Amino acid sequence: MDIITDIKAMQDRCFAERAAGRTIAFVPTMGFLHEGHLSLLREGRRRGDLLVLSIFVNPAQFGQGEDLDRYPRDFARDEQLARACGVDLIFYPAADAIYPDDYATFVNVVGPLTTTLEGASRPGHFRGVATVVAKLLIIVQPQVALFGRKDFQQLAVVRRMTTDLNLPVEIVGMPIVRETDGLAMSSRNVYLSDAERQQALSLSQALARGRHLAAEGVCAVGEVLAALRAMIEAQPAARIDYLRICHRSSFLEQERIDVDSVLLLAVTVGKTRLIDNGSLLDEAEAC
Amino acid sequence: MDIITDIKAMQDRCFAERAAGRTIAFVPTMGFLHEGHLSLLREGRRRGDLLVLSIFVNPAQFGQGEDLDRYPRDFARDEQLARACGVDLIFYPAADAIYPDDYATFVNVVGPLTTTLEGASRPGHFRGVATVVAKLLIIVQPQVALFGRKDFQQLAVVRRMTTDLNLPVEIVGMPIVRETDGLAMSSRNVYLSDAERQQALSLSQALARGRHLAAEGVCAVGEVLAALRAMIEAQPAARIDYLRICHRSSFLEQERIDVDSVLLLAVTVGKTRLIDNGSLLDEAEAC
Repeated sequence: MDIITDIKAMQDRCFAERAAGRTIAFVPTMGFLHEGHLSLLREGRRRGDLLVLSIFVNPAQFGQGEDLDRYPRDFARDEQLARACGVDLIFYPAADAIYPDDYATFVNVVGPLTTTLEGASRPGHFRGVATVVAKLLIIVQPQVALFGRKDFQQLAVVRRMTTDLNLPVEIVGMPIVRETDGLAMSSRNVYLSDAERQQALSLSQALARGRHLAAEGVCAVGEVLAALRAMIEAQPAARIDYLRICHRSSFLEQERIDVDSVLLLAVTVGKTRLIDNGSLLDEAEAC
Repeated sequence: MDIITDIKAMQDRCFAERAAGRTIAFVPTMGFLHEGHLSLLREGRRRGDLLVLSIFVNPAQFGQGEDLDRYPRDFARDEQLARACGVDLIFYPAADAIYPDDYATFVNVVGPLTTTLEGASRPGHFRGVATVVAKLLIIVQPQVALFGRKDFQQLAVVRRMTTDLNLPVEIVGMPIVRETDGLAMSSRNVYLSDAERQQALSLSQALARGRHLAAEGVCAVGEVLAALRAMIEAQPAARIDYLRICHRSSFLEQERIDVDSVLLLAVTVGKTRLIDNGSLLDEAEAC
């Protein structure tokens, strides 16, 4: 397994791999790998001749007062986990290589896709995401790039950006990986105290409850959201940022739940902001 | 010479050319080719195994009330001229292929580079330029792309964008090509009536006068600009949009002329907006 920090060296290497006829599968991450990331790497291993992992805590996607400085990092551990997943190449650039002093170019996806939900709560977040993902895809030149569905809106932004900029890559979204008690895996889960960890279960429990209600035919969005809001607000350390039922591709809010409905929620538990999401109705279920 | 309109076909073709070890030189244009464009094509022919010309009148770089609808077009003539310059491949996409209905991604270069001069007069112009050039470079994958220095600020924006997004391409700026009487070549010159054509000479004459003054040691920017302004305003159909002396790379205004000074001007003659620019002092001259 090679570790490359230099952008030009990385781009040249990937170009040579492509020229030699190899398929590149790419998993971009901010490191501090968990089972969610590892599921992407395993799928990437299956799909590519060369499996590339990038580790870059992207300053451009953090807002003022967010957790950039304390975001968890452990490169030695990530390296071990990557090796165990069959990663061929880790791209591990420095922040001032990706964004030199005179850096001035940003990729913006406009419209409801980036102004609602995470976009409303974290101004500039998706600009930072779209910019760094565009740069990484241009450097790594993968045929396939894999992203987790936990960041559901991010996945939609990345798909929109790659299509619009004609980047010749297939974007693959992979299922959320959860702890056995249902908590969605996140590098930020390490921030949680034991008490907060318990209250954080209200996110996945709300999702399960929403699915149950929809399956029972309770499809008025207002009614479902009121029930879920009450569940979460019963947790003393939990503060809802947003709790919304939207169409999976337009991200417009719905009045009635259907097969295209996705529940999206962001909840701050103590000082830790957590997100989760999921569809509410299977194709098979009516509403 | 092949003509390709389909984006995917173009990208696949260029990928195959690169994979076969060929160097791609690329000249992006809005068509209605003149000697300025042809000088780019001849230099591109020298630099690339495969010479690619794109012709695309880019709606995203035109503002409301600008001349998108009446911008001159003559594909048959362009095709002949391209063939005579040894072009291998014309990329000629439709507007709704480059910008489909659900298109939402824009490349923004921020800072004085895009907010002054053309950026101030034409809001959104450089966003349109940076977006389409990024897309074209991703589709065509050239090692070398050639641009004219008549659009001096555009060239700087393109350089900034390609560096920032890690696009692996050398951006080459080529000298302004002028009519024998000094008028900078532009597709828009066809808009000019005979009387306007005469008055349009005030742009290149102002530039020549600025160079003369600087060479004589008149280096106070205020004094030089006042003299040039008077020259242009003596033309009844000419209205100055901007007339500025700036540092060639920061685009910040200067107080004294030095070897990094560039005179940039935009003047509307009748209904036609013209631009011109040039440096004022050679390395050899003191000021």
